Amino acid sequence: MKKYSKQLHIFGRNLKALRQARGLSQERLAESAELDRSYVGAVERGERNISLINILKLADALNVHIVQFFKDENG
Amino acid sequence: MKKYSKQLHIFGRNLKALRQARGLSQERLAESAELDRSYVGAVERGERNISLINILKLADALNVHIVQFFKDENG
Repeated sequence: MKKYSKQLHIFGRNLKALRQARGLSQERLAESAELDRSYVGAVERGERNISLINILKLADALNVHIVQFFKDENG
Repeated sequence: MKKYSKQLHIFGRNLKALRQARGLSQERLAESAELDRSYVGAVERGERNISLINILKLADALNVHIVQFFKDENG
């Protein structure tokens, strides 16, 4: 887990930015993706090792391609 | 699971293509990524809901960016 902590945080930061850009609360996003709100919060904080299917659910709910979650503009 | 079966298959197909392009066996890739060979085989067949950390391990082992796994050239 530790080795990939940075990447989990990048994923979470991107998820949060995409959600906020759409004006969605964690609750609304979670409901739309059929996930738990506290789970979405933990993913945004880089605390959870999310599965591919849940990543795809979030991409669908945000109407983005999955690669949007992996952009690392800070290098 | 069923709803995202196509995307799991795309992921698996891309993983297999990237592995084969490097001349690596499933065994060698699994060893390098510290995963089980039969697990890697199941992921390539789109049968497993892989976690983000395991995706990152495979990307490291193949020396590719994670987005390479999500290319969908067949639409």
